[in-house]
Amino acid sequence: MDALEIHRFLKGKIRTALPVEKVDRETLSLLYTPGVADVARACAEDPEKTYVYTSRWNTVAVVSDGSAVLGLGNIGPYGALPVMEGKAFLFKAFADIDAFPICLSESEEEKIISIVKSLEPSFGGINLEDIGAPKCFRILQRLSEEMNIPVFHDDQQGTAVVVSAAFLNALKLTEKKIEEVKVVVNGIGAAGYNIVKFLLDLGVKNVVAVDRKGILNENDPETCLNEYHLEIARITNPERLSGDLETALEGADFFIGVSRGNILKPEWIKKMSRKPVIFALANPVPEIDPELAREAGAFIVATGRSDHPNQVNNLLAFPGIMKGAVEKRSKITKNMLLSAVEAIARSCEPEPERIIPEAFDMKVHLNVYTAVKGSA
Amino acid sequence: MDALEIHRFLKGKIRTALPVEKVDRETLSLLYTPGVADVARACAEDPEKTYVYTSRWNTVAVVSDGSAVLGLGNIGPYGALPVMEGKAFLFKAFADIDAFPICLSESEEEKIISIVKSLEPSFGGINLEDIGAPKCFRILQRLSEEMNIPVFHDDQQGTAVVVSAAFLNALKLTEKKIEEVKVVVNGIGAAGYNIVKFLLDLGVKNVVAVDRKGILNENDPETCLNEYHLEIARITNPERLSGDLETALEGADFFIGVSRGNILKPEWIKKMSRKPVIFALANPVPEIDPELAREAGAFIVATGRSDHPNQVNNLLAFPGIMKGAVEKRSKITKNMLLSAVEAIARSCEPEPERIIPEAFDMKVHLNVYTAVKGSA
Repeated sequence: MDALEIHRFLKGKIRTALPVEKVDRETLSLLYTPGVADVARACAEDPEKTYVYTSRWNTVAVVSDGSAVLGLGNIGPYGALPVMEGKAFLFKAFADIDAFPICLSESEEEKIISIVKSLEPSFGGINLEDIGAPKCFRILQRLSEEMNIPVFHDDQQGTAVVVSAAFLNALKLTEKKIEEVKVVVNGIGAAGYNIVKFLLDLGVKNVVAVDRKGILNENDPETCLNEYHLEIARITNPERLSGDLETALEGADFFIGVSRGNILKPEWIKKMSRKPVIFALANPVPEIDPELAREAGAFIVATGRSDHPNQVNNLLAFPGIMKGAVEKRSKITKNMLLSAVEAIARSCEPEPERIIPEAFDMKVHLNVYTAVKGSA
Repeated sequence: MDALEIHRFLKGKIRTALPVEKVDRETLSLLYTPGVADVARACAEDPEKTYVYTSRWNTVAVVSDGSAVLGLGNIGPYGALPVMEGKAFLFKAFADIDAFPICLSESEEEKIISIVKSLEPSFGGINLEDIGAPKCFRILQRLSEEMNIPVFHDDQQGTAVVVSAAFLNALKLTEKKIEEVKVVVNGIGAAGYNIVKFLLDLGVKNVVAVDRKGILNENDPETCLNEYHLEIARITNPERLSGDLETALEGADFFIGVSRGNILKPEWIKKMSRKPVIFALANPVPEIDPELAREAGAFIVATGRSDHPNQVNNLLAFPGIMKGAVEKRSKITKNMLLSAVEAIARSCEPEPERIIPEAFDMKVHLNVYTAVKGSA
């Protein structure tokens, strides 16, 4: 059975459903006319009442313009639809959130912002998805400021949360001190930008960020492709290194790749510090084959793939984070996200082949939800 | 039990649901990563494939800005939300359509048009709802022209379909000829405008349209409040009548009111033709109390209320129409709507107290769906 076949068989992945099976005249006169008039009046007078009388309290829009889908790139909103339906499926399956895919035929930044803002009355939260960098940074920032409901961009925040949790548990196993390790982050897009910031928040002092023009260095603006790279250059690279990824990796303790397949050479791992940790998260082809990495001396290897140990999987984070944020009607704060990092990290007792829990362990989602709710 | 209580108890009226209960690693690898990549690629290459591989084939947006909700007027999108959820509930309950409420915080005509257009990739059809006249006319026209999926405005087209079906069956009972009857339509808003056009399409020659400034008369532009009134004035009132509703009703065979409560006096009914038919459809208070109308000599009385016989109820039309149109991926045509009129009319053997079927009779929805599909 292949994926096309099962999608055709199921005719899509998301449905609507009624909260009751009883549909008779009396029910309709209460749920629709004339009864709904009282409810409509109450919600018009106080919009917060929509959280009491409508499904908004548990409803999330999964919004994309399809400009950066999976490993497929800018394939547009029709290509994005099966992915966003899949995401809505996961929200329901893992946190009983009623999520609905909204794929926009509009890709211009300001238009996306104004469209998503106009949808606020229907939703308790917004999950942005697969929107390309750098526009996704501005879209997330503007919507977070201008909307009154939580706005979350999974590719930025969700990935950073899960990577940070995996990082903390791997660090524990290396028995190194957080303020002494050198961490190289390769690929400063939606995920990498946020991973760097989370690492600094967690207490890492020596982060080296690398993108297509080499190590980001504030003294050499040509290494920076946009204002977000420049921002990262200013807060990283304390030793003012210049050069390529190979140079960056000399003496490094961690490699975190959110870039492209097969760009990390085994011999570079040999130049890293003792007990080197390799997160090769590019999908579907990792930055280095996990076996090669282990042969080259990697102490811990993590990937984004489900067929290897240590899958760094966003599914560990987004259901619990959105459930907690929407329920508290709270915008997403750094504090909430860091509490999610802690919750994921302490949901498993780390071993080199299991630095992170599995998404099918429902305890993780409950832990994330409880932590996020508590810190909202 | 009151409506507020049951809404609080159920916490809203619409949920999402999964097409399968089986959620394990294998299912996820097919429905989400890595399997979904093939599906995404197929849908990007040919957007029509979204009808095969995603839920779009059965998904409808119920869109409102809350500018003309029920009898409540312009109460905005938060007030509209429980009503649109109710509509989504009805789509599911009566035609198994997956409908989702989209309440917009934007009420400007051009912005509504561009927002709804941008939602096209996610939906198989658009049901506009409770958007005020006259902007709803332009919004429906523009979206019907500029979108590639069916766009339906229930307050315009749905009401006109059901009123027309009731009209045909009532006419049969009066044993009058369609080309000889005089029909007065009172209230030329979203519903009245379309009812007039449908009556003319059905073969009525003598329609007299009345609004707040009296009988619409093309020789007296002051009777027309907008361009749509002027359009109606040009195609109605063949006798060039001037004056108020009372004047219009002299010798009339039908009164169709989609206006305000208690504006029709019993003595005016006495001036109508023999076997006068009264459709007092204002909600919740009809243009005349049905008992008073009958005492004044009305042969048939219909209202919009469920607690009287002959309820003219949009629920008879919209589930089957949208099911048929979305399934055929066909824009809504006049032909499809007239076939729905016929389907509803012949779904019951008319009697004066039952000129129209009941919405709980599932046969009606099947008949409407089959007729619309056949004429699409």
